[in-house]
Amino acid sequence: MTDPIYKYQYLRDFALSVFEKIGCPLQQAILATEVLLKADLRGIDSHGIARLSGYVRLWNKKRVNSTPQVRIVHETPSTAVVDGDSGLGLVVAPAAMNIAIKKAKQAGTGWVAVKNSNHFGIAGYHAMMALEHDMIGMAMTNASPLVAPTFSIERLLGTNPIAVAIPADKQPAFVADFATTTAANGKLEILQRKNLAAPVGWVQTKDGKPSTDPNETKSGGALIPLGSDREHGSHKGFCLGAWVDIFSAVLSGANYGPWVPPFVAFLEPPNDPVGEGIGHFVGAMRVDAFRPAKEFKSHMDNWISRFRTAKTIEGEDHLIIPGDPEREMEEERLQLGIPVNPKVVEDLKELAASFSLKF
Amino acid sequence: MTDPIYKYQYLRDFALSVFEKIGCPLQQAILATEVLLKADLRGIDSHGIARLSGYVRLWNKKRVNSTPQVRIVHETPSTAVVDGDSGLGLVVAPAAMNIAIKKAKQAGTGWVAVKNSNHFGIAGYHAMMALEHDMIGMAMTNASPLVAPTFSIERLLGTNPIAVAIPADKQPAFVADFATTTAANGKLEILQRKNLAAPVGWVQTKDGKPSTDPNETKSGGALIPLGSDREHGSHKGFCLGAWVDIFSAVLSGANYGPWVPPFVAFLEPPNDPVGEGIGHFVGAMRVDAFRPAKEFKSHMDNWISRFRTAKTIEGEDHLIIPGDPEREMEEERLQLGIPVNPKVVEDLKELAASFSLKF
Repeated sequence: MTDPIYKYQYLRDFALSVFEKIGCPLQQAILATEVLLKADLRGIDSHGIARLSGYVRLWNKKRVNSTPQVRIVHETPSTAVVDGDSGLGLVVAPAAMNIAIKKAKQAGTGWVAVKNSNHFGIAGYHAMMALEHDMIGMAMTNASPLVAPTFSIERLLGTNPIAVAIPADKQPAFVADFATTTAANGKLEILQRKNLAAPVGWVQTKDGKPSTDPNETKSGGALIPLGSDREHGSHKGFCLGAWVDIFSAVLSGANYGPWVPPFVAFLEPPNDPVGEGIGHFVGAMRVDAFRPAKEFKSHMDNWISRFRTAKTIEGEDHLIIPGDPEREMEEERLQLGIPVNPKVVEDLKELAASFSLKF
Repeated sequence: MTDPIYKYQYLRDFALSVFEKIGCPLQQAILATEVLLKADLRGIDSHGIARLSGYVRLWNKKRVNSTPQVRIVHETPSTAVVDGDSGLGLVVAPAAMNIAIKKAKQAGTGWVAVKNSNHFGIAGYHAMMALEHDMIGMAMTNASPLVAPTFSIERLLGTNPIAVAIPADKQPAFVADFATTTAANGKLEILQRKNLAAPVGWVQTKDGKPSTDPNETKSGGALIPLGSDREHGSHKGFCLGAWVDIFSAVLSGANYGPWVPPFVAFLEPPNDPVGEGIGHFVGAMRVDAFRPAKEFKSHMDNWISRFRTAKTIEGEDHLIIPGDPEREMEEERLQLGIPVNPKVVEDLKELAASFSLKF
């Protein structure tokens, strides 16, 4: 059974209507839609339209503010802390990134820590905003605790992704965007839907034992940091996740670690918050704050071509340059449409009905 | 058989004499010694005194300049590019870090890309320089190509470590310092000496097949990026190593990827360089460029205690906070001395003889 295909424009118009229905001002609704659907276009289906009803449920619970006044609460020439006013991260993070870019124009780099926000879609979107300015972009966020650090049976961190976007000249940009766990939660959701086992090293049971059941997180189990186990470096994945958590939330004044509010509306946030909302950290570095942009980008072309044409193991055509699969997917889905899982379709139909919309 | 133990002061005095013998000005010799031996103190034996003769051999080949004029070649309020003048990375990187710290005092953050340098010891040393200024420190470096990206059989990246040091108040600082490979090369060297097999996922054969032979890199094999294989996220480890390479070398104008000059003096650097020497990237962020330092550090205390006291899997006492094992090792070795592998002792005796020194 194949998933039904929807045109980008159809999904976009629907998401836009929903964001308007919950009260987002038009410009913010357009932006939220663009960020959300960028995930579907780039093949990160877990972070796109599939999450739309989740955002609405958070808004219903008054945990998402659809008319946020995003403001700078502290700044220096190259830094700022932004209060997202409980807005959608889809809107708050681009605002923060624009501040980072503006600061980079003046000071060479700009770094913005964000508190009081919500999930921001794919990290790559925000990092890539820097590219058109000949800047390197970075974006990270903390998230609801689902990950047990090495030796832990408690879920203390989110999948805490990092994105780094680096401009090139003739080559497409280098865009890394990855969860700091062995596998992103979206990968597990796919296995759940297909009733397939997960590779050992992706999840553990509630007692911290290795497991292949993709449903472990539903019964107290946890995702595992990149590395899979101590012998294969899971303590390094923990370092990465911790780094993201601290930059996103301890620097900004958001909730960190196990205090991060859950994304799902049916779970209440902890009643002893250590900060406000969830946190992000974004940055922009002007390439020519280091060397002439033309020179840098021509060396990036050389870097990318050298790696792309490296000798491969038998059976593999070429190395995958970070960002290539997502860019190719985006080109394809813009043309041919976006497959949407039937359960998500059902969910969107319900959502439509609740707002007297059609889907 | 246990390794002979040497007092820190003994090794320090010896290394200092050697650095002076190769012509380092006294202050630089003292600094190089301190950085080098910090590795031995913190238990990262592969990066300490064991490398001393390697540095001397590079100096013999005129690939290390013992009297470098380290200088800024470009700068903005929050960035600089530093030319290390072929100096020891042990001296060049702290100079770059001091520039980053100075810029952070003015602009909130400081970011310095370094070209024309050599190996810089442990990344953690440089990142930790920021701590006493209530700043977050970061340090990364590229290194001789030993690592095959996912799907590649060519060695295109070094073990490219990342260090992040974050100050706390009553708790010791959070200090992450890790190679972006499944296992650092030093871990393999230990297995080589003990004639033990490596876990699957650390190295591959020259054809890209899984292997447990810790000597693979001596016959065209390669280390593997953090993640071990594609199914367990080795493409994310590749993203990390690539990020370090690009920040360290493409931003600065150093050699990148397979063009990075080898650390071993018996291998000549590529004859088609794409830059100068090897590259580093260091940064400092003033904590109070985001929120009051006292507030930040008290939340770091809370973060660290919460994680340290998390529930563990059976058989494990507590979670390991990044930096804890190294700090404990440093306290122990300062008191009890530093075990030095007999082969390294032999090597140091030869080195001593060549300079009419005693070891």
